[in-house]
Amino acid sequence: MTVRQTELEAIDRYWRAANYVSVGQIYLLDNPMLREPLAAEHVKPRLLGHWGTTPGLNFIYAHLNRIIRERDCDVLYVCGPGHGGPAMVANTWLEGTYSEIYPGITPNEAGMRKLFRQFSFPGGVPSHVAPETPGSIHEGGELGYALVHAFGAAFDNPDLVVACVIGDGEAETGPLAAAWHSNKFLNPALDGAVLPILHLNGYKIANPTLLARMSDDELRALFTGYGYEPIFVEGHEPMPMHAAMAGTLDNAFDRIREIQRAARSATGDIERPRWPMIVLRSPKGWTGPREVDGKKVEGFWRSHQVPVSNARGDAAHRRILEDWMRSYRAEELFDANGTLRPELQALAPRGEKRMGALPHANGGLLRKELVLPDWKDLALDIGRPGTSTGEATRAMGRYLREVIRLNEDARNFRLVGPDETASNRLDAVFEVTNRVWMEAIEPYDTGLARQGRVMEVLSEHLCQGWLEGYLLTGRHGLFSCYEAFIHIVDSMVNQHAKWLKTSAELPWRKPVASLNYLLTSHVWRQDHNGFSHQDPGFADFVANKKADIVRLYFPPDANSLLWVTDHCLRTWNRINVITAGKQPQPQWLSAEAAEAHCRAGAGIWEWASSDEGADPDVVMACVGDVPTLETLAAVDLLRAAFPDLRIRVVNVVDLMTLQSHSTHPHGFTDEAFDRLFTTDRPVIFAYHGYPFLIHRLTYRRRNHLNFHVHGFREEGTTTTPFDMTVMNELDRFHLAIAALQRIPRLAGRTTDAISTLEGELSEHHDYVRNHGEDMPEIRNWHWST
Amino acid sequence: MTVRQTELEAIDRYWRAANYVSVGQIYLLDNPMLREPLAAEHVKPRLLGHWGTTPGLNFIYAHLNRIIRERDCDVLYVCGPGHGGPAMVANTWLEGTYSEIYPGITPNEAGMRKLFRQFSFPGGVPSHVAPETPGSIHEGGELGYALVHAFGAAFDNPDLVVACVIGDGEAETGPLAAAWHSNKFLNPALDGAVLPILHLNGYKIANPTLLARMSDDELRALFTGYGYEPIFVEGHEPMPMHAAMAGTLDNAFDRIREIQRAARSATGDIERPRWPMIVLRSPKGWTGPREVDGKKVEGFWRSHQVPVSNARGDAAHRRILEDWMRSYRAEELFDANGTLRPELQALAPRGEKRMGALPHANGGLLRKELVLPDWKDLALDIGRPGTSTGEATRAMGRYLREVIRLNEDARNFRLVGPDETASNRLDAVFEVTNRVWMEAIEPYDTGLARQGRVMEVLSEHLCQGWLEGYLLTGRHGLFSCYEAFIHIVDSMVNQHAKWLKTSAELPWRKPVASLNYLLTSHVWRQDHNGFSHQDPGFADFVANKKADIVRLYFPPDANSLLWVTDHCLRTWNRINVITAGKQPQPQWLSAEAAEAHCRAGAGIWEWASSDEGADPDVVMACVGDVPTLETLAAVDLLRAAFPDLRIRVVNVVDLMTLQSHSTHPHGFTDEAFDRLFTTDRPVIFAYHGYPFLIHRLTYRRRNHLNFHVHGFREEGTTTTPFDMTVMNELDRFHLAIAALQRIPRLAGRTTDAISTLEGELSEHHDYVRNHGEDMPEIRNWHWST
Repeated sequence: MTVRQTELEAIDRYWRAANYVSVGQIYLLDNPMLREPLAAEHVKPRLLGHWGTTPGLNFIYAHLNRIIRERDCDVLYVCGPGHGGPAMVANTWLEGTYSEIYPGITPNEAGMRKLFRQFSFPGGVPSHVAPETPGSIHEGGELGYALVHAFGAAFDNPDLVVACVIGDGEAETGPLAAAWHSNKFLNPALDGAVLPILHLNGYKIANPTLLARMSDDELRALFTGYGYEPIFVEGHEPMPMHAAMAGTLDNAFDRIREIQRAARSATGDIERPRWPMIVLRSPKGWTGPREVDGKKVEGFWRSHQVPVSNARGDAAHRRILEDWMRSYRAEELFDANGTLRPELQALAPRGEKRMGALPHANGGLLRKELVLPDWKDLALDIGRPGTSTGEATRAMGRYLREVIRLNEDARNFRLVGPDETASNRLDAVFEVTNRVWMEAIEPYDTGLARQGRVMEVLSEHLCQGWLEGYLLTGRHGLFSCYEAFIHIVDSMVNQHAKWLKTSAELPWRKPVASLNYLLTSHVWRQDHNGFSHQDPGFADFVANKKADIVRLYFPPDANSLLWVTDHCLRTWNRINVITAGKQPQPQWLSAEAAEAHCRAGAGIWEWASSDEGADPDVVMACVGDVPTLETLAAVDLLRAAFPDLRIRVVNVVDLMTLQSHSTHPHGFTDEAFDRLFTTDRPVIFAYHGYPFLIHRLTYRRRNHLNFHVHGFREEGTTTTPFDMTVMNELDRFHLAIAALQRIPRLAGRTTDAISTLEGELSEHHDYVRNHGEDMPEIRNWHWST
Repeated sequence: MTVRQTELEAIDRYWRAANYVSVGQIYLLDNPMLREPLAAEHVKPRLLGHWGTTPGLNFIYAHLNRIIRERDCDVLYVCGPGHGGPAMVANTWLEGTYSEIYPGITPNEAGMRKLFRQFSFPGGVPSHVAPETPGSIHEGGELGYALVHAFGAAFDNPDLVVACVIGDGEAETGPLAAAWHSNKFLNPALDGAVLPILHLNGYKIANPTLLARMSDDELRALFTGYGYEPIFVEGHEPMPMHAAMAGTLDNAFDRIREIQRAARSATGDIERPRWPMIVLRSPKGWTGPREVDGKKVEGFWRSHQVPVSNARGDAAHRRILEDWMRSYRAEELFDANGTLRPELQALAPRGEKRMGALPHANGGLLRKELVLPDWKDLALDIGRPGTSTGEATRAMGRYLREVIRLNEDARNFRLVGPDETASNRLDAVFEVTNRVWMEAIEPYDTGLARQGRVMEVLSEHLCQGWLEGYLLTGRHGLFSCYEAFIHIVDSMVNQHAKWLKTSAELPWRKPVASLNYLLTSHVWRQDHNGFSHQDPGFADFVANKKADIVRLYFPPDANSLLWVTDHCLRTWNRINVITAGKQPQPQWLSAEAAEAHCRAGAGIWEWASSDEGADPDVVMACVGDVPTLETLAAVDLLRAAFPDLRIRVVNVVDLMTLQSHSTHPHGFTDEAFDRLFTTDRPVIFAYHGYPFLIHRLTYRRRNHLNFHVHGFREEGTTTTPFDMTVMNELDRFHLAIAALQRIPRLAGRTTDAISTLEGELSEHHDYVRNHGEDMPEIRNWHWST
């Protein structure tokens, strides 16, 4: 099928309009239609923006518009080179969505003027694709995640095609290089399609790109090896390029439909198809000035940002700009009011088919609440506190199994993780689902299938990116990860938090489901592994984000983990980080007690306290499963030594309760805080992570100078769990000694008790030196009073 | 060339010995030579370790030994599947290096017993390849960095071949997927070679791997596309596999030599060669139990860790273990003393050619100090403080130019960064060097050459990994990066910090050069970009690491940046993070003043203070270039309003001076701290990053309750630099208001002054709303008194 010449000419005009509107955004304060000669005062005093990638993005947009109109399909445009913000703004304005969302920016000359002025302007819009940009789920700042977001959007969206433009700069990043393998997880019968468009315009900021300098043969081999069928579109003459691009897109969409039709009518097994992808080679800064000041600009890195730098101050530069803008012949594209001519308007799709108006790009519009089980049905029967043992994450696995079962038909929940679902003891989910896997499946394989709610790949980047794409298009999910290695995606979490913060300030962006983490195999229980696996610092990183976005939960046992999981799955626009161990541990709270405790976020454990609700000698506070165990054991030691000691045990599940009420919505009022922690008693605080986070959160509290925090001091190796706590002085003996040293009423009477405890520690050290693993394993503890 | 059968049989025996010693480490407490029947008490009570990858690692080691002996070459073994720790320990013990480094672990039965016991044992050695492991530069915990470390080691080491084993799990990660492109930066004439060995044993923890399930055709295409010549070795029968591996390694090493010979004798341009790489398909858990409890183990993921789980408690399991160990026929491999038989000892290379003894793997042995210029020769002549303007990083670029010039012959310094050397204004370096680039170079390209000290790729992971590999093999370097995007490598920094901490505890590991960062294009000067580019949180992340490893520097101007850079390049075993802007800014310190100030780490700027060295009304403290400017401008405003105000200005360059002397070696004593910050006066503290870090560092100081810290509050967008400071209340007006509100002596007299300042702020807001970029740019400031 070839596209008629007249249609290609119309597309060329549309493209010119988008290019014109893009250049205008970068340069013009005024005179948007160039009705008068360009004067200095029409040019912005500070020129900010990226031209280089923009014409290519406009080119792709115009051609996708034709495909959508002709095929009446849903296409999501993921713009990897997100610094080409002018392109996405220009196109959504031309198609009308921009003016619908921002009525002040009208579809005429007055609107065009405002559109130009606001771009990369104080009080205006960012120069990158951002939440403010209609049609986008993808921030254009940090590079690497376009393709993985595209796949995340396509999963469980069988009618969606995600056209994913990947810049050749971004293609050098690790996450992008791994993301090509996402095709091994995409089921053509049940998921949508991703059409990667690798846009090789040759240059980064000041360098050629690796992929653009590779030969077509190497590129063909590379993408064939990744499992794609690459189609090349190369050139710089507009009309032949339009013909080639139109034909190639028809080809690619035909091929996608064919793959999907075959898979959706298949009766037997479906094999991984060879999906098409496009390699588009076009000049950087295409249609812009060829040379400026005698230096090569078009087709070179000098066109990356602002090709003519001094258009306000230098008449010759201004002439180059004016000639360039007039080369698009705006008068043929816009009517006397500065409105796109009707025959060009007709080239854009209608209504929600417009890429700027696609509901998937504003996923909150499509989000349906999950159907959740009653978690209490899955709660552990724990008897008296501390008398039974359970594995918290195993209980959570059973809860997630029910979530998957109840939402199977809705196909809107996925569990991602780097090959650790079973290792993290969530394997109950495999009773009702599988790991999705499109490679060969051998008869002896377990838990693999062409469909499944679990996605495992040894790349935290892919897990994170898939889930982000999935959430941003209106679905739900959870990422389970080894605690130490979640740092791999620090920067992705950072960018997602920024997206959420800005989105929440835009009334037209509807809330999306929260990004939920289970961090397990945590620092205190690295039975197999050593120092490399010991890092609880993700909480510190997350705590820097805006308070209305982040939550940090440390459920101390199975039932509290169930409550927290259930709660997190009901929230939106948040980043919920749940840290919980997977090893057998004593259980403390019945379902009812867990509910009351977790709902409060923190509270006194009266059954473990001996202050009768008032006037404690010391507050023993704890956050996290291992610190809770050690704290309760320390309380036992203290009471054995001084039976009349008035000890208060406070457990904190929701770390943000510690922060001031004015800083965080979950923060306790000072009165509530003081009721737990007193205003003047020593607080021995056992925390799961780096101690400073507690100081930081409690900094403004009255009693904070009496907080003595024990936590991870960056001491680790391969050793027993109990030895780990000793190395970091988080163990029962150190906690008890710390308490004895600080209780005024005991002054002068603690020498013997402390030396007994120190004796225990030195016995422990002897064990480590001499007996190794013969030493008692982590000493469990039974509430004995 | 084929290898003789007798030689292959000898290699097979050596391999069996390594496998035997590996299994022994995972299982045995005692009876290491199995001189008596295996009893329960001979088996460790807790079985920890990873068998699955180990036989493959041993297989490769044995074959590399032959290559080294025959060719007398230097081979560094980078063990990507680092959880196969038993293999590297076994082999370095067999070749003798282990006993030389750890004399307690003798090369006989007694030593073997200790070797077995200590593995993954409290007080023993980690189960992963770690600093404790001889011959390693690569921690075996977090996956993804084997190949990029290998390339880092190979650069500027023309006589070195780095054999890099990549597990098929690791091959799924992003950083690894990008690292294949490192061949585009390796010069065959001047650098060494990297021989990647992709070890496809088929499975991760509980899943098949993506690459192992790809067809040979797809793999061949993929690696051809990456620019390699893949050679396949596949099978499971030991003897044919030995023949295939020996022949393939000979092939590969011949090919490497041929490439190098051609490049090193070439007179014209050198093109990127097609380096060989090996795809080794062998069963996971090779030679281990085929089945346990009726379930497939060898050649399946069940062999990942401990294939026979209950060998202590279950006689049948113990029998499987005993049969397995006896299958290696240790009596044919070790003599009556448990010492490796001489004919097998002869298979290992000698002396420093042994892979466990290679000096490159203990890079501190090879490290030579850099020749550094006198930075004062490059200092800016600044006149009176605040009267001249300079670009700090541009001055640093001139300094680095001299570093490169002075060390050109030594070839031991590299500058890495993601395409930002020029953008970050370090471009003076291009006067003496180029960006290294092995792809095609076009006539209009600038700054590209086949050799050069600058490496640019749009992947922070590659920059970081190359530099780590380069430093760990005894060289020097600096990574310049946009501040926000350094989070991309948080987890890599984390692992490097752990490596440094542990290495410093091992007397045989010699110090390596520090890992130096320049973070620029920072949060306050994102003139082009928006919120996505605004994140100063890396300092918080780094501050969690061990105090003796990390340093955070915030030089306020060009000359102080020069001093700090010079200082960092002289240090070792540290992570130095320098944050400095690239934009024109007022200059404050002459070379002499900068030296005195930076050497102290923090101090009073008397020329900007009005307290005459005593009894200030308020301390105005600042960290970072923009906060310093705003602080000094605030001082001006304050003195204009209240001419008799006694203001002290304190500037902090070395952030760790704030921490207590007992916590950090650079920390001020309390006396010194109090001399700067007083014990009772309000301190208005303007900090470059998230305010809490200052609270955290000063937590134990007497005056800390009077610290009022202004910094980044996570408010960002595309706007002017000055507006950014206003949005975050770090600007001069907010700082001045904060001071006025807290100076007791002014109580009741500040209403007018504050309302004037508030008027300035509201005027600013009007500008942003109405005038946009017409508003005054960041207001520079001249010391006017």
